[in-house]
Amino acid sequence: MNETGNDHYLMTPGPLTTSRATKEAMLRDWGSREQEFIDLCARVRRRILDLSGAAETHECVMLQGSGTFAIEATLQTLIPREGRLLVLVNGAYGRRMASIVRTMGRNVEVLEWPEHLPCEPGGVDVFLAQNPDVTDVAVVYCETTTGIINPIDGIAGVVKQRGRRLHIDAMSAFGAMPIDAAHIAFDSLTASSNKCLEGVPGMGFSIIRRSHLAACEGVSSSVSLDLYEQWRGFERNGQWRFTPPTHVMAALDAALDQLRDEGGVAGRLGRYQRNCGALVAGMRALGFKTLLKDSQQAPIIVTFLSPEEPEFEFQRFYDCLKARGFVIYPGKLTTQDTFRIGCIGQVDDGVVNSFLMAVRETTKEMGLSAYQGAPIRRAAPHPDERHRAPGPQRPAPEQR
Amino acid sequence: MNETGNDHYLMTPGPLTTSRATKEAMLRDWGSREQEFIDLCARVRRRILDLSGAAETHECVMLQGSGTFAIEATLQTLIPREGRLLVLVNGAYGRRMASIVRTMGRNVEVLEWPEHLPCEPGGVDVFLAQNPDVTDVAVVYCETTTGIINPIDGIAGVVKQRGRRLHIDAMSAFGAMPIDAAHIAFDSLTASSNKCLEGVPGMGFSIIRRSHLAACEGVSSSVSLDLYEQWRGFERNGQWRFTPPTHVMAALDAALDQLRDEGGVAGRLGRYQRNCGALVAGMRALGFKTLLKDSQQAPIIVTFLSPEEPEFEFQRFYDCLKARGFVIYPGKLTTQDTFRIGCIGQVDDGVVNSFLMAVRETTKEMGLSAYQGAPIRRAAPHPDERHRAPGPQRPAPEQR
Repeated sequence: MNETGNDHYLMTPGPLTTSRATKEAMLRDWGSREQEFIDLCARVRRRILDLSGAAETHECVMLQGSGTFAIEATLQTLIPREGRLLVLVNGAYGRRMASIVRTMGRNVEVLEWPEHLPCEPGGVDVFLAQNPDVTDVAVVYCETTTGIINPIDGIAGVVKQRGRRLHIDAMSAFGAMPIDAAHIAFDSLTASSNKCLEGVPGMGFSIIRRSHLAACEGVSSSVSLDLYEQWRGFERNGQWRFTPPTHVMAALDAALDQLRDEGGVAGRLGRYQRNCGALVAGMRALGFKTLLKDSQQAPIIVTFLSPEEPEFEFQRFYDCLKARGFVIYPGKLTTQDTFRIGCIGQVDDGVVNSFLMAVRETTKEMGLSAYQGAPIRRAAPHPDERHRAPGPQRPAPEQR
Repeated sequence: MNETGNDHYLMTPGPLTTSRATKEAMLRDWGSREQEFIDLCARVRRRILDLSGAAETHECVMLQGSGTFAIEATLQTLIPREGRLLVLVNGAYGRRMASIVRTMGRNVEVLEWPEHLPCEPGGVDVFLAQNPDVTDVAVVYCETTTGIINPIDGIAGVVKQRGRRLHIDAMSAFGAMPIDAAHIAFDSLTASSNKCLEGVPGMGFSIIRRSHLAACEGVSSSVSLDLYEQWRGFERNGQWRFTPPTHVMAALDAALDQLRDEGGVAGRLGRYQRNCGALVAGMRALGFKTLLKDSQQAPIIVTFLSPEEPEFEFQRFYDCLKARGFVIYPGKLTTQDTFRIGCIGQVDDGVVNSFLMAVRETTKEMGLSAYQGAPIRRAAPHPDERHRAPGPQRPAPEQR
């Protein structure tokens, strides 16, 4: 068992490795109407707002369930029934938002880029100019489909200038990637307990512009997924409308203590960047190639191309690494054979180096000839020509 | 700290007191796509089906979130868009189901009884005869608004004979009250991890007749709350579609071990009955009165009438008991001033007797003159004439 209380590290986009202290916060039962629990929830809401500089302008509304539940509740509550949402898509999570809005029977447009390229503000500007009936825009900050980072500052600028509302899926970014409500004009930003905040899974939350939220009574056609009523409940008596995941909340409160002690968002980002740098350099030294250019890579999760040698079989690679104490993640691209390695959770560059040793042993065991040679070292990044985006970026947005 | 790891017992309808072993099962991080976790989920689904004798005919579909999320998802998935649901109401949880279906824009009828009386099969039969367009009927097994038990066997018989589908909210009953799919013809039965199964809160589940579920593709207008797609996901690869509450699931698996070791549903019901018997007898000996007749009382939660003396103030009563290590619950009736005491969770009659001592001390401290006299003893139940239901039960169902 390692110091986190596990016999392996989860090198995934979540659920991920949490600290022993975070898990031990769950060794108590809380009554959901007890003052101590009400205080805990108020403290968590305030700390989340403070992480994004949003305390003056926004409200934090928590919700039971996974991150997708929080995304659906946000769209249910905030997209007017007669409104029209434009979703920017370069991966599965953008597509999921479009699917959610389509399934709930509201109006949705999609602007799509290839998965290995970021969404691009210029294309959004042109689309909004041509489509005045679009009321809201949604974008994913870090698309874990590939690990790409989207330029939300540029996108937020365009959306604000065109006078539309912006909704950010910051699931895999919040807590590590900087987000400041004073500089990025978002109307909602949604994340969960279990990504860069390093809590356990079971709840999500949305940071919502107060002035808009206050106007959204009766918009949701779901009782459970109604963040207006959920907010009114918290305001009324500090309590959740329906049974909260009390242990998950206690774990999140403990995890937020640790985030503070690590130096807040900047401290956490620094650790994840060191993890990502060591991972990419070490994997390249072993002969693996990344899907993305370094400049587009978020330090959250890295997509590697599967070796083309017939000896490489993902399940065996996974099993060999699991036997050595590391759980990795399959790829999610439809066009290319890939796998993914997470850089987040209670993992540091010492753990990453142990992981790289395990990868080297595994490539030997599998007989991957091209992947045994070079010793693990901090190599300078060498660009992956095959996947470099075309010169002046001019992706052709595809509407569907 | 007591043996459950808490400094108090939760004498509430949930979240409730769980065992130390249940909470310690959360001291590990599980990858949601790991084989061990897939096996754990399959085991939990199978055990839940076995508890209700439903393995041959039904499927267990789990869902992230609170019990209300599972209720809403069940109704979203199973009530046809052109169908019509009749909800039997004698408390807040029946009203909530009606509100959920109304908010999602589907057709709903309500048949209502006074909160201190059970729903009555004869009234349902008459209503169904007069309303052939009603396709589905929903009822709450144990209404925690009062703690009343509804006659689901009689209701199920009527609904089956009239050829309609039956949906049971068994949130506060499943795991302790007997439910056998071979004798009670239900199409869905919904509960959560955190009531009589004694897990921690954070997930719910529905036991759904396979033949109906298989016909429900595309019925839900919610992506998150779609139990057809959730089921297909489990069938495809044993995995949840969206991040599961891994620690909550591990705790539920441990809690199911303990349910087995206690002698299953019968063993658990026996303990809760002993708790309830000791609680009611002891409180009556102290001068308190129950809202319900003993024959209508489920051994889950008991509603007591607040004393009419001016010295009684609920918040002070709550605080005094909290200081002595017991958390109680406010009442939920609109017509009468009441409070509620739960009999469920990791509590036995020894704990109940300690609780009764704390109540006696509290009544003295508060100066409640009528509530200090008699010593705590196992008194024979003495009927509460004031709330006895009228002779041959003939409640006037109220439609709205």
